[in-house]
Amino acid sequence: MTKFNKILVTGFSQSNLDENVWAKIRELADEVVFEFTPDADCLLSRFNKIDKEFINSLPQLKYIGILATGSATVDYEYANSKGIVVSNIPGYATESVAEFTFAIILENLRNLKKAKQVARDGDFSGDGFSATEIKGKTFGIIGMGRIGVRVAEIAMAFGAKVVYWSRSRKEEIEAKGAKYESLDNVVSKSDFLSLHLNRVKELEGIIDEQQIKSLKSGMVFINVAPMELINLTALENQLKEGDITFIFDHPDEMNPEDVTKLSQYKNCVVYPPIGFVTKEARVLKQDIFVANIENFLREKASNRVS
Amino acid sequence: MTKFNKILVTGFSQSNLDENVWAKIRELADEVVFEFTPDADCLLSRFNKIDKEFINSLPQLKYIGILATGSATVDYEYANSKGIVVSNIPGYATESVAEFTFAIILENLRNLKKAKQVARDGDFSGDGFSATEIKGKTFGIIGMGRIGVRVAEIAMAFGAKVVYWSRSRKEEIEAKGAKYESLDNVVSKSDFLSLHLNRVKELEGIIDEQQIKSLKSGMVFINVAPMELINLTALENQLKEGDITFIFDHPDEMNPEDVTKLSQYKNCVVYPPIGFVTKEARVLKQDIFVANIENFLREKASNRVS
Repeated sequence: MTKFNKILVTGFSQSNLDENVWAKIRELADEVVFEFTPDADCLLSRFNKIDKEFINSLPQLKYIGILATGSATVDYEYANSKGIVVSNIPGYATESVAEFTFAIILENLRNLKKAKQVARDGDFSGDGFSATEIKGKTFGIIGMGRIGVRVAEIAMAFGAKVVYWSRSRKEEIEAKGAKYESLDNVVSKSDFLSLHLNRVKELEGIIDEQQIKSLKSGMVFINVAPMELINLTALENQLKEGDITFIFDHPDEMNPEDVTKLSQYKNCVVYPPIGFVTKEARVLKQDIFVANIENFLREKASNRVS
Repeated sequence: MTKFNKILVTGFSQSNLDENVWAKIRELADEVVFEFTPDADCLLSRFNKIDKEFINSLPQLKYIGILATGSATVDYEYANSKGIVVSNIPGYATESVAEFTFAIILENLRNLKKAKQVARDGDFSGDGFSATEIKGKTFGIIGMGRIGVRVAEIAMAFGAKVVYWSRSRKEEIEAKGAKYESLDNVVSKSDFLSLHLNRVKELEGIIDEQQIKSLKSGMVFINVAPMELINLTALENQLKEGDITFIFDHPDEMNPEDVTKLSQYKNCVVYPPIGFVTKEARVLKQDIFVANIENFLREKASNRVS
């Protein structure tokens, strides 16, 4: 395996990767530097802007490794046009997010925060607690990528009927029992509706006013995907009606007034962005990050962004 | 279908069954009474004591229907010896309890109570949250009855390796990938260990001191079954060590000092008894209760206790 001459690290620091991961990266280059140097042939970045100008400032550059799933901050089209390979880390948090999706659904169904509180206060009666089951319900999934597939599999194990809409059909999950339907049908018939779409321009606002008005009374709407997918004004109006529950975990990516608007309703549950925080996801993310670099050096580039 | 002359209801009242269920029961007898009458030929009970003397006080008695899973309060052996059929309601809360088991596991893994709290307080950073996944872990199940089977199926969908011990092996779940092992092995190798045994005399204290000492560091021990299965002194000592987490939901059936002893530890999570409270379980329970009576009248008695 060939090596890089100089790896330039930008947008993150020593502490963002474990020491054993840095050790592996150091083996892949003569030098790893954290200060700008024009002769780097490998650039590692995270959420920082890598634009034309920056790319042009590194004439030796062959490879950009992004320590994230999102690639919107890197002008990868320009990089590609100059023969530079760009790789990201898709899917490292698949299991973490799929498990989190069921964690927050079940927490809501069973009213666990209150249950823990009353038990801590010495009330062991169980009075006033009721719940519904996932089993037998219609579980709608919008977006059947990696996470959507895992959520579908787990929902079916719970005994739910899974219906989905996605930009492309997934035979694998249909063979297991998931049913493809129109977006409108999935939205309007679901007892549980979970979004698992990436944020891309043409999907913004895809859950529009008409669809939000069509949501079933008593249903639970879960969004661990970007909030740009949803018409927030329509969502707020529906929450005001009080006959749906909305659970989300990306208040950090919204403007604060929107968060306040939604979370004033009792039937809106807000979490911090912790869907992807498992130790396993952290390890997998770093493994893929290093494997991407190694694969490029072996001329078998992986997880290319183009 | 024949009818009963008189149905005597004891140990519960009008409010314990829905009105449409009472309507069905009234069709199964000339009369339904709530005050003792010696000429009843059908007795409905719940948690109340039905002993020899009470059985002898009803010389026409042919059938006892228990509105519960537990039958320990009814002297069913004596009843059977007099040709009286006794039926109970096993399994009505299977799904409810299986879903609850994952609800409380995931709540713990993701620290959801705290997460909801910090988000309500406006902290959307996610700082300080970490978690582990169910996927890839060893999930031990003690007791492979109805609930154990459902917990096993769901655990496998989450990607766990399921090992189990039960008084009898269950081929059905082994065919799906669960592995039968000795009780000691299941206890000592599990990252998650969940008890799903009924309370019967010979199983009391089955999770003994030696087994509790063998629990893996960092593991999560869940008990939604009776606490009599566990040596509580050994459990308290292990909680004091701080390297396991224990989650349970039947503080109501324990003496208060034992609850206090366990729940003083941060790594002990206590819930009220809400595993079985779903609306679906309530409906199913009542359906089985009525079906048991009808089946007896059709000479096809169901769910007999003997």
